[in-house]
Amino acid sequence: MKVLFIGDVVGNIGVKMINEYLPTLKKDLKPQITIVNGENATSFGRGINKKVYKQIMSAGADVITLGNHAWNNEEIFSFISQTSNLIRPLNFPGKNVPGNGYTIVNINGKKMAVINLQGRIFMDPLDDPFQRIDQLLDQIENQVDMIFVDFHAETTSEKQAMAMYLDGRISALVGTHTHVQTNDYRILSNGTAFLTDVGMCGPYDGVLGMKYKNIIHRFKTQMPTRFEVEEDGGGILSGCVIDINNDGKATHINTIMINPDRPYQN
Amino acid sequence: MKVLFIGDVVGNIGVKMINEYLPTLKKDLKPQITIVNGENATSFGRGINKKVYKQIMSAGADVITLGNHAWNNEEIFSFISQTSNLIRPLNFPGKNVPGNGYTIVNINGKKMAVINLQGRIFMDPLDDPFQRIDQLLDQIENQVDMIFVDFHAETTSEKQAMAMYLDGRISALVGTHTHVQTNDYRILSNGTAFLTDVGMCGPYDGVLGMKYKNIIHRFKTQMPTRFEVEEDGGGILSGCVIDINNDGKATHINTIMINPDRPYQN
Amino acid sequence: MKVLFIGDVVGNIGVKMINEYLPTLKKDLKPQITIVNGENATSFGRGINKKVYKQIMSAGADVITLGNHAWNNEEIFSFISQTSNLIRPLNFPGKNVPGNGYTIVNINGKKMAVINLQGRIFMDPLDDPFQRIDQLLDQIENQVDMIFVDFHAETTSEKQAMAMYLDGRISALVGTHTHVQTNDYRILSNGTAFLTDVGMCGPYDGVLGMKYKNIIHRFKTQMPTRFEVEEDGGGILSGCVIDINNDGKATHINTIMINPDRPYQN
Amino acid sequence: MKVLFIGDVVGNIGVKMINEYLPTLKKDLKPQITIVNGENATSFGRGINKKVYKQIMSAGADVITLGNHAWNNEEIFSFISQTSNLIRPLNFPGKNVPGNGYTIVNINGKKMAVINLQGRIFMDPLDDPFQRIDQLLDQIENQVDMIFVDFHAETTSEKQAMAMYLDGRISALVGTHTHVQTNDYRILSNGTAFLTDVGMCGPYDGVLGMKYKNIIHRFKTQMPTRFEVEEDGGGILSGCVIDINNDGKATHINTIMINPDRPYQN
Ligand SMILES: [Fe+2]
Ligand SMILES: [Fe+2]
Ligand SMILES: [Fe+2]
Ligand SMILES: [Fe+2]
Ligand SMILES: [Fe+2]
Ligand SMILES: [Fe+2]
Ligand SMILES: [Fe+2]
Ligand SMILES: [Fe+2]
Repeated sequence: MKVLFIGDVVGNIGVKMINEYLPTLKKDLKPQITIVNGENATSFGRGINKKVYKQIMSAGADVITLGNHAWNNEEIFSFISQTSNLIRPLNFPGKNVPGNGYTIVNINGKKMAVINLQGRIFMDPLDDPFQRIDQLLDQIENQVDMIFVDFHAETTSEKQAMAMYLDGRISALVGTHTHVQTNDYRILSNGTAFLTDVGMCGPYDGVLGMKYKNIIHRFKTQMPTRFEVEEDGGGILSGCVIDINNDGKATHINTIMINPDRPYQN
Repeated sequence: MKVLFIGDVVGNIGVKMINEYLPTLKKDLKPQITIVNGENATSFGRGINKKVYKQIMSAGADVITLGNHAWNNEEIFSFISQTSNLIRPLNFPGKNVPGNGYTIVNINGKKMAVINLQGRIFMDPLDDPFQRIDQLLDQIENQVDMIFVDFHAETTSEKQAMAMYLDGRISALVGTHTHVQTNDYRILSNGTAFLTDVGMCGPYDGVLGMKYKNIIHRFKTQMPTRFEVEEDGGGILSGCVIDINNDGKATHINTIMINPDRPYQN
Repeated sequence: MKVLFIGDVVGNIGVKMINEYLPTLKKDLKPQITIVNGENATSFGRGINKKVYKQIMSAGADVITLGNHAWNNEEIFSFISQTSNLIRPLNFPGKNVPGNGYTIVNINGKKMAVINLQGRIFMDPLDDPFQRIDQLLDQIENQVDMIFVDFHAETTSEKQAMAMYLDGRISALVGTHTHVQTNDYRILSNGTAFLTDVGMCGPYDGVLGMKYKNIIHRFKTQMPTRFEVEEDGGGILSGCVIDINNDGKATHINTIMINPDRPYQN
Repeated sequence: MKVLFIGDVVGNIGVKMINEYLPTLKKDLKPQITIVNGENATSFGRGINKKVYKQIMSAGADVITLGNHAWNNEEIFSFISQTSNLIRPLNFPGKNVPGNGYTIVNINGKKMAVINLQGRIFMDPLDDPFQRIDQLLDQIENQVDMIFVDFHAETTSEKQAMAMYLDGRISALVGTHTHVQTNDYRILSNGTAFLTDVGMCGPYDGVLGMKYKNIIHRFKTQMPTRFEVEEDGGGILSGCVIDINNDGKATHINTIMINPDRPYQN
């Protein structure tokens, strides 16, 4: 079982990169399931709407995950409850959170749970991700063959700790949110594949996808500054590909990095 | 001109990795200058003392940089003022900060400034790193041929913004502090080499070098928990190597990653 | 029913103020129950130990509450489980937290629940205090006649929001943690008494009870600085007194403030 | 010399309270100078515009101070540079900050500097307020007879530390920003009047002036929630009055609190 995962799609260039490279990547890598984080996929880089949701699905995604920007485009409330392949972080508090925090996908007679979870260090105080994933795993781990977690979190410590905590109970945990791919892909001792952050898919010449002049203006003046998605220059696509055995253990993980300095080579 | 940089050395395994691999790396890569971040080099993973300072220098470092843990081992106050090759973040406030925030090294008739700078997002409110680096560059940029910055910061945004802000004025900026190497090495448009985080040098099986059981206990209970450096298992060494032209522009940057899953190969 | 509450007791001067004024206050005000926050009551200003616990009880407390410093003196683990009148924040996560987050006290045939709850804004990410207090109230509100909450939190917004959220379900909510008494005592529309922060009981001449020179040194240098409880100068005692009807509604709240500039007057 | 200070004016009810009570307060107290914090004075509770600026001045203010919301209404950029009696926090970084961080007012042949300063703990990383106030005092303290500081900051510790740090160099320091008045007015050992927070002037029935249902919704769901100024219910006016001698030392400070539960009484 091969899983292809693409990190936070940012703005128009992000969607363009998905359209341009996802079909090729799928042809070359032949994943059985493709998961894309779409929390920044609108042209403003905040949230997702129906149009970009459809574009990413059409380009080849099977499941779209989100993160702290899940609700930033209000259009999401009109369709997240009607689709099972768009999931938001599991650990938003309360009983009436729109949408689901996970989905179960059937792949060649096997079942894979795809879970979206959010960290708390330097982020909003959602429910404890450790407690919430424990509860969910208790509930579903006997019903599924493989479990994949997109852990949307800021710090390396929270992401490493969660991966080691879940090592052996899940097939793979990859981080998202920092928009920069890390170079620490590995299979942990008990068979869980791990990558601290997959990185983003969008403009190559901004700061996390946003125009760098605005970001620097904010840092230098501490005055309110409108952040705008970079619309010029090249694009980057960051992803990873993971092999999972029939017993749910990961056997291999590697990163994908396409950008003007590292053009795609099969 | 080739620069070899090794990220945050953590605890005894970190020092052991330096002793084991730094001589080999220097023999194979032939850098003219070797810089090591030593902010976690004591056996407790906090600060630096004279013994480990000497060990890292003996193993082949030319300059040692620090970070937010600079002052966590009080022994540093007894020797930082007597050595020019141990530098602490430039932007600690006030006029009486022990030690220096940069040093100028002579290499084959060329002068390289090595600067240590610290970020503020989700960190202590030091002086504004943008203002302080501007002031320092105004003062020294005409006196030196190359400028290397170790920017010790938490977030990817602050590190990317600083690199783009300084692009063309400095030869290279590499990030430290998150202890996880990023996979985004590049030469920016105006000739500055950049890597968001170099990663750490120390235990492979902990969380950022610390025993993972303690870290998970803290996350799960929010009770006071003593963090201890992992003393067992394999070691990781994270670094990068940068080529800089005589005009101070970088021409090449690449990462170094040695760990049990990726053994050293020349 | 009259409740006397004294805010965070800090260090030796704090315990001395309790010994000096609590008997007099009880004689003059004749409360049926006296509650003291003791999270800083050791001589180091961090946590509580058996000796100061006994001193505060002997001086006239019926219940002692805690806060984010609950566990900072390890001695607490040896006795918190054996006493029902020392309570710690309800919303520490997990199922094995030592001690209890509330206690029920019998007063003249009436039952009062005393609850300790902790906020999260700019504090550790405990479990959501809104969810946890909801669950507890669902469980106990039919068994008790009055409910008193010590909400240990940093921001005025979280404390005001919690008070308005619980207005009518509880008899009183008072804040602790900032160590400065607020001047906003009031009875909310549905009968809950509220005071954003009760203030502290300890040294008058420090910063929140700590020697001000150390605090200023830390602010000015951002270097590690040992904070020490102020042992000299006068003392302050901050409290409040609340009247509660038999139906559990509060009818009156007022503050108590004793310090060298405002000596005690009955 | 008597100074009247009114804390953060919030929205329409805030301006209404100013119109209703400021003339009366001035008639009864006869201050020589009246200072009002106007950082939330627009109907949205964010920033200030020309209309409300004029209303507050017409009602009797001599100087208006601001805070972290200084720039939230863009209209301010059109007039802050043309007026000397509207000041913004001194320690915004950079050399091109619009407006001034202080003003010097002539009162009966005496000169009073009014300074606006902002804290950093749990706030944006402006320039170090300790360094910046030191520099300003070095520059102006010999030119003025009295110095008044509005220190806009979140934590009690930063406000207390700053007051003790400046004790004897300035006539008075009052805090703003938390919107809740504290009950710790005092004259420090060397003659500086101090109050941790003056409190707000606006709606009595909201959370810090905002509709409490929205605030609670945000706390309970962690979903994006639009905060709206409370437009119904009663009003609160929080202030303080300070007497300063000709030598610049304060001799007396007291609080002003007007709300439906504590109607104005001269
Ligand atoms: Fe993102
Ligand atoms: Fe995110
Ligand atoms: Fe480090
Ligand atoms: Fe660090
Ligand atoms: Fe406390
Ligand atoms: Fe506390
Ligand atoms: Fe305000
Ligand atoms: Fe404010």
